[in-house]
Amino acid sequence: MDWSLSIDKAIPKPLRVIFRGVGQVFFCCNAVTGLIFLIALYVGGITAGLAATVGVISSTVAAYLLGFSDDDIDAGLYGFNGTLVGPCLFLFLENTPQLWVLVVLASILSTIVLAALMRILQPYNIPASTSPFVLTCWMFMVAVYSFDGFARGPVLPEPGIPADIAAASVVAAEFATLTQDAAEAWYTAVTKGVAEVMFADSVIVGILFLTGIAITSLRGASMALAGAIVGVALPICLGADKTLIEMGLYAFNPVLTMMAVGWVFLKPTTGTAILALLAGVLTVICQAGLANFLAPIGLPTLTFPFVLVMWMFLFAASKSKYWGNSH
Amino acid sequence: MDWSLSIDKAIPKPLRVIFRGVGQVFFCCNAVTGLIFLIALYVGGITAGLAATVGVISSTVAAYLLGFSDDDIDAGLYGFNGTLVGPCLFLFLENTPQLWVLVVLASILSTIVLAALMRILQPYNIPASTSPFVLTCWMFMVAVYSFDGFARGPVLPEPGIPADIAAASVVAAEFATLTQDAAEAWYTAVTKGVAEVMFADSVIVGILFLTGIAITSLRGASMALAGAIVGVALPICLGADKTLIEMGLYAFNPVLTMMAVGWVFLKPTTGTAILALLAGVLTVICQAGLANFLAPIGLPTLTFPFVLVMWMFLFAASKSKYWGNSH
Amino acid sequence: MDWSLSIDKAIPKPLRVIFRGVGQVFFCCNAVTGLIFLIALYVGGITAGLAATVGVISSTVAAYLLGFSDDDIDAGLYGFNGTLVGPCLFLFLENTPQLWVLVVLASILSTIVLAALMRILQPYNIPASTSPFVLTCWMFMVAVYSFDGFARGPVLPEPGIPADIAAASVVAAEFATLTQDAAEAWYTAVTKGVAEVMFADSVIVGILFLTGIAITSLRGASMALAGAIVGVALPICLGADKTLIEMGLYAFNPVLTMMAVGWVFLKPTTGTAILALLAGVLTVICQAGLANFLAPIGLPTLTFPFVLVMWMFLFAASKSKYWGNSH
Repeated sequence: MDWSLSIDKAIPKPLRVIFRGVGQVFFCCNAVTGLIFLIALYVGGITAGLAATVGVISSTVAAYLLGFSDDDIDAGLYGFNGTLVGPCLFLFLENTPQLWVLVVLASILSTIVLAALMRILQPYNIPASTSPFVLTCWMFMVAVYSFDGFARGPVLPEPGIPADIAAASVVAAEFATLTQDAAEAWYTAVTKGVAEVMFADSVIVGILFLTGIAITSLRGASMALAGAIVGVALPICLGADKTLIEMGLYAFNPVLTMMAVGWVFLKPTTGTAILALLAGVLTVICQAGLANFLAPIGLPTLTFPFVLVMWMFLFAASKSKYWGNSH
Repeated sequence: MDWSLSIDKAIPKPLRVIFRGVGQVFFCCNAVTGLIFLIALYVGGITAGLAATVGVISSTVAAYLLGFSDDDIDAGLYGFNGTLVGPCLFLFLENTPQLWVLVVLASILSTIVLAALMRILQPYNIPASTSPFVLTCWMFMVAVYSFDGFARGPVLPEPGIPADIAAASVVAAEFATLTQDAAEAWYTAVTKGVAEVMFADSVIVGILFLTGIAITSLRGASMALAGAIVGVALPICLGADKTLIEMGLYAFNPVLTMMAVGWVFLKPTTGTAILALLAGVLTVICQAGLANFLAPIGLPTLTFPFVLVMWMFLFAASKSKYWGNSH
Repeated sequence: MDWSLSIDKAIPKPLRVIFRGVGQVFFCCNAVTGLIFLIALYVGGITAGLAATVGVISSTVAAYLLGFSDDDIDAGLYGFNGTLVGPCLFLFLENTPQLWVLVVLASILSTIVLAALMRILQPYNIPASTSPFVLTCWMFMVAVYSFDGFARGPVLPEPGIPADIAAASVVAAEFATLTQDAAEAWYTAVTKGVAEVMFADSVIVGILFLTGIAITSLRGASMALAGAIVGVALPICLGADKTLIEMGLYAFNPVLTMMAVGWVFLKPTTGTAILALLAGVLTVICQAGLANFLAPIGLPTLTFPFVLVMWMFLFAASKSKYWGNSH
């Protein structure tokens, strides 16, 4: 909205670039939105907030030092991957002082990978999105097995064969006592779905994220909400693990996919809204598939299902008579 | 042949597009050939025939609705991936009414993935071929572990570590009673090898497929036959699992590779026939490798060995003084 | 150096092309350097030397017969992947007479894959480097499980889940009696690190390799040495398996990465030397990650960590104001 963009421009440049970096996690080039996201992260947990702050600063400063495009840096494009790298490593790896070194190193690498993918995708005019964050974090998390200096945290899935993994998760679902009534469970799952984009298992963080997006664009916020609803309703229909659904872990990928397809990268029409819905549905299936694909090495999907489905839809869009790039 | 192309043009457009879509599974833009393939599929099994019909219609209609190139749709290029998606999901997943919904959804996705890969490969003038079918079916099959609403069929390989898998298959080979004499075994393996391109474990289906290809091109049919022979002879020399060889499961990939390299995409010379033979040999090794690579998550290779080897040969062809694209 | 280039030009063409092919393993288009490398390989072991000779000749002759660029062949670019394919297959697979057929076939395939990757990377002006060797050898090694005619050698890692693998390697490290004093251990690990680029577990081979590189370029040799030191020091800091470190198995990838980033492909400045150091550090982490990623199917990383990190840095370099391609 106009007032928020006025404030955005009034913020001193270094702070503005950092805040925009955080905002770009949800495609919002808007420092006010980014500031709300950052506050929400600290509300979700001090460590997560600090890790995101260290990440966004490391990756943005690295982009300056390596001489990448000033316009891209100014738009916060070199910040959002670092923002995600920080809380991700602190969630999945053991919390030790030396982990901060790894966060800085991984954030710098995410900047290099982003520049590389921008170059690769340049002829196609397709965004790299959060793929540098995913590739970097996967590499660091799977490397940890080999190093005594670092250890896996309790949340990182155990490596194993998919059938065993599936059996284990069914047991987990049976043990989970689902005491909430249906309406409350839906409210929790949908808001946490938005919050889990930045690894926060919290209703209030999800509401703050939605508020921040709404300040930049109401269509964006609607798409995020619709994505979260798809990411709860569809896994229930398909019979997925209830614990995962309630934590919003099937929802954060369709949230991003529907925002990307239905708001950011294609013309905002009714047609692309329907297309976004289809993309959201396929993202849920893609996430289940990728999760099982990664099971033998024990890695989480992170936001790669969103990246894959978004890439397919955007590449396909350029072959279509009806869809068109808004960028 | 000329008479078949005259019939092709006489068939009403909607039917022609659908039949051509089936024909394109073996690179034949010819409705007569496609019709023979479709009849063969129903001969192989009613469910497989119906699933292929639903698949080819879903993917072609999706291409119309999404506004992709009319010329490509008319040539059946948006049909053959759907044709394969249908029987594939019905072979590997549990046969339930809701599986038809999955077939429609997967066929639509295969159309989007095809458009995306066409765009990615456009600067190189390289075909996407059956890769959209493979990627889509892999995703849906590996996703099924997470959903109670769907289940694996008995044919889908169990996930496991390659060494155990290999040990199990040796035992299987010992139990298989090979009562046929050698000539009959060869005849069975070679014809089934052609039939398995569309998941049919049947001699008569293979003969019908070869007939259909011969109507479009004798060179095409020779390459298909040569590919099937390579896919039986080479695995025997290398000491592969006899049960798999007899079912034609090492042969359907070299069939497609030799047709692509020796007939469709390069100039039809003696040189490219030799090249096609080399490509066929490498496809057999690639298939064994990919099968073991996919073993931990329990997925079949489908036609990806063919896609990989064909891509390598076509990309390399454009760097060669002697080879040339016929397209 | 100038005198070595004069000798290079004086050598008869067929021999020069073969020697340059060996030299290109360390980016040296210099027949004298290549000859020293080849002698070193025979010093490391007759079989390894013969396998490299068969490999480099097969892949180079294949490039001639397939009609690829004369300039590229003359520079030895179609030789170095074959040079690596030979000793690699003889190290990891069971040593049988029929393995020589596989080496020839794999060397021919590495030439086709190189031409394909050159075409794919052509719009970006990025080298394929040793990726054809890696992809080809992975495919042949993982295919071997399915064929009775070939068997795994004792060095090829057992397939398994990363956690078990990691536990096993810790035990191995405890049993390894590290009797050498620290200085000797460092000297061994660093020189073997250079030697392991061509699979030689030998101090003298490493010294010969460094000498050969120094004849072509002192900066190149410094970068190789610095890479080997990073590949010993960093894994010690991170707490990696001591047996692997002492054999130089964490060092051969950063050796190649630092040579590529700090000498061959970017302007040779102080800035790119620092950049090369960062690339070396990330290569060590990437290698640990990739090793665990490949654990379920039991494949070694080979030089793919180097390829991945080098690609990221070179793609990113073209988006930077400061870095520049020297080519």
